[in-house]
Amino acid sequence: MKFTINQHVLSKALSEVGKVVTQKSLIPILSGIKIIAEDDGITLIGTNADIIIERFIPISEARNNEINIHQTGSAVVSAKSFTELIRKLPESIQLEAINHQNIQIKSGDIFTQFNGFSAEEYPTLPVIDQSNTIHIDAEDLKNAIKQTVFATAKNETRPVLTGTHFTFSGNKFMVVATDSQRLASIVKDVNTKGETTFIVPSSSANELVKQISDYSGVVELHSAEGYILFKTDKLSLYSRLISGTYPNTSKLIPTEQSTTLFLNRESLVKGIDRACLFAGEWKNNNITLTIQDNKLCISSGSSEMGSIQELQEIKDMDGDSDLKISIDGYFLMDAIKTIKDEEIKIKFNGTMRPIVIESTHGKSPYLHLISPVRSY
Amino acid sequence: MKFTINQHVLSKALSEVGKVVTQKSLIPILSGIKIIAEDDGITLIGTNADIIIERFIPISEARNNEINIHQTGSAVVSAKSFTELIRKLPESIQLEAINHQNIQIKSGDIFTQFNGFSAEEYPTLPVIDQSNTIHIDAEDLKNAIKQTVFATAKNETRPVLTGTHFTFSGNKFMVVATDSQRLASIVKDVNTKGETTFIVPSSSANELVKQISDYSGVVELHSAEGYILFKTDKLSLYSRLISGTYPNTSKLIPTEQSTTLFLNRESLVKGIDRACLFAGEWKNNNITLTIQDNKLCISSGSSEMGSIQELQEIKDMDGDSDLKISIDGYFLMDAIKTIKDEEIKIKFNGTMRPIVIESTHGKSPYLHLISPVRSY
Repeated sequence: MKFTINQHVLSKALSEVGKVVTQKSLIPILSGIKIIAEDDGITLIGTNADIIIERFIPISEARNNEINIHQTGSAVVSAKSFTELIRKLPESIQLEAINHQNIQIKSGDIFTQFNGFSAEEYPTLPVIDQSNTIHIDAEDLKNAIKQTVFATAKNETRPVLTGTHFTFSGNKFMVVATDSQRLASIVKDVNTKGETTFIVPSSSANELVKQISDYSGVVELHSAEGYILFKTDKLSLYSRLISGTYPNTSKLIPTEQSTTLFLNRESLVKGIDRACLFAGEWKNNNITLTIQDNKLCISSGSSEMGSIQELQEIKDMDGDSDLKISIDGYFLMDAIKTIKDEEIKIKFNGTMRPIVIESTHGKSPYLHLISPVRSY
Repeated sequence: MKFTINQHVLSKALSEVGKVVTQKSLIPILSGIKIIAEDDGITLIGTNADIIIERFIPISEARNNEINIHQTGSAVVSAKSFTELIRKLPESIQLEAINHQNIQIKSGDIFTQFNGFSAEEYPTLPVIDQSNTIHIDAEDLKNAIKQTVFATAKNETRPVLTGTHFTFSGNKFMVVATDSQRLASIVKDVNTKGETTFIVPSSSANELVKQISDYSGVVELHSAEGYILFKTDKLSLYSRLISGTYPNTSKLIPTEQSTTLFLNRESLVKGIDRACLFAGEWKNNNITLTIQDNKLCISSGSSEMGSIQELQEIKDMDGDSDLKISIDGYFLMDAIKTIKDEEIKIKFNGTMRPIVIESTHGKSPYLHLISPVRSY
């Protein structure tokens, strides 16, 4: 393998792939990045226990001959130190793998010899049947993950709850996450028809959002037994799937409500944020919501620090104005922060039933459910 | 105590003072910030084991009535939670201390009650005789600290070496730091005459640089038994001094050299930085400098990672061109990074004698000394 490449281009791709690579892997070669030079470009592969990332740098897009493949081939180098070195080199880089123990990098008057790993020993990528393809708009996919993934369970008591649940049915796709105290769900339209469902680990979902943060085309999904592949023109992200049956969450969503409030989202976020300062004393970060003189009162207190209470305007209200509920302030903030709407709707049904947060316009694409905290 | 104040003004001052306050102090009141309202403005005081910071917010500078003192007095509040709360409040803040257990903060429709500490129990500031004053230009003081403080000893084997040594003599002031493997020193002119010397803990010196980072007037120094006070119009920083006798470092500076090199500073920093990537294997981060065909060769290697070598242009050279020396790459980089000159002078005197880094123009205000590493 021998090629020359622009330093910025290689450095950017390495750091994107390197982000997922476990630094201290029990299997040393897995702390490496595999570099493959082919006639049409350069591919970088990195992996950890949950994810494999494959990034392609096409020769066709190179301006000013940024990439020149002199000899095809492959090599595996330590992700951390190789990425750091490339970041510190000036403009143009020539990489030549004499053998896997001697990878030579030249840049101007700088000459480096790197010890690598045998490329043959690097694990091969999972084989995924690419016939069964779903196409999703990248923005829809990113938004659906961002608005749900925070609600996944942080502990492994019920492994399925540590993932986000994707369901494709007809021309809809739905993403749900819940840790059994709260639930976040979102429904989007999708062009491809498909009837499939899978559970993606939250770490993979978060990584996918980062890897396609500045991509705005279409993402292809290919699912297989135990694996899912998210694919764009330059990126393939393989993730393991969580096996098991996801609970039927649709029956958790209350159909009744005694009080519905319409509130300004931004000022509510700020109010909850302030109240949370005083709510750390107990495990559940209790804050209390009450209605006083047609205003929403947000309050919390701790015996050590003191107390806070503030009044916020209610834009509109339906139903019973007698409301008092204790809730985990951070859960409420997590949910409201992901929403982009100016105004939101919160539905209450007494002190002990979950609250529901919805969009104010028409059929809500998103829905957040939070169970109250017993405060007595 | 009762006053109103602009949120930004209070928030900025609190975070500056709060930075030094130890969060988990054995004496709870020391994790607080003391707020004093007087007719001419508001003073904030915070402290840790080494430093006391006193910041003054004068009423006279307030535009649009930013500060209004309704009643003078004082209070002590938890630094962390109070600073966080003020940061999260909107524009205008009214603070009223009913008693030390009930400090009320109002801002619009937000009402907070804070538990404080008894202001009387907060330690009083050290009394320092302000007659014996030295005046230093703030820029000179900041530069002198930045160019030396990194060389202080990190371990406490010889406590005096953990501090920076200030010497005022005639119209000069000199700052020296050394950990016995390397030494950094700088000499500046000063208007005030004074014959005094003291050792400032490196943490205090670093904090001083941060606290006066955007101040460019004159700093007053008042030294007392065991204490030093650095004073500007709005800041008083008291630091404990390290007791003991600082070693006589002037005799360490070599008077002879066999080779003198003139090098471009920026490309040397980058080269050393790259070489350090491969130098982590041994304790001393060994990199090797040699002269090859009138160029400087910087090299290093590790059995695990590989090796690097690069050639850099020598701008000018005096003396013997036969040079080979091993040195701690990070020590060299620390020293060169602080220098602003485009070109620097490095003097060598054989493999086992310290190297000296100086300014290329005239009488050098700074001087760095680094002992080589035995590489055999």
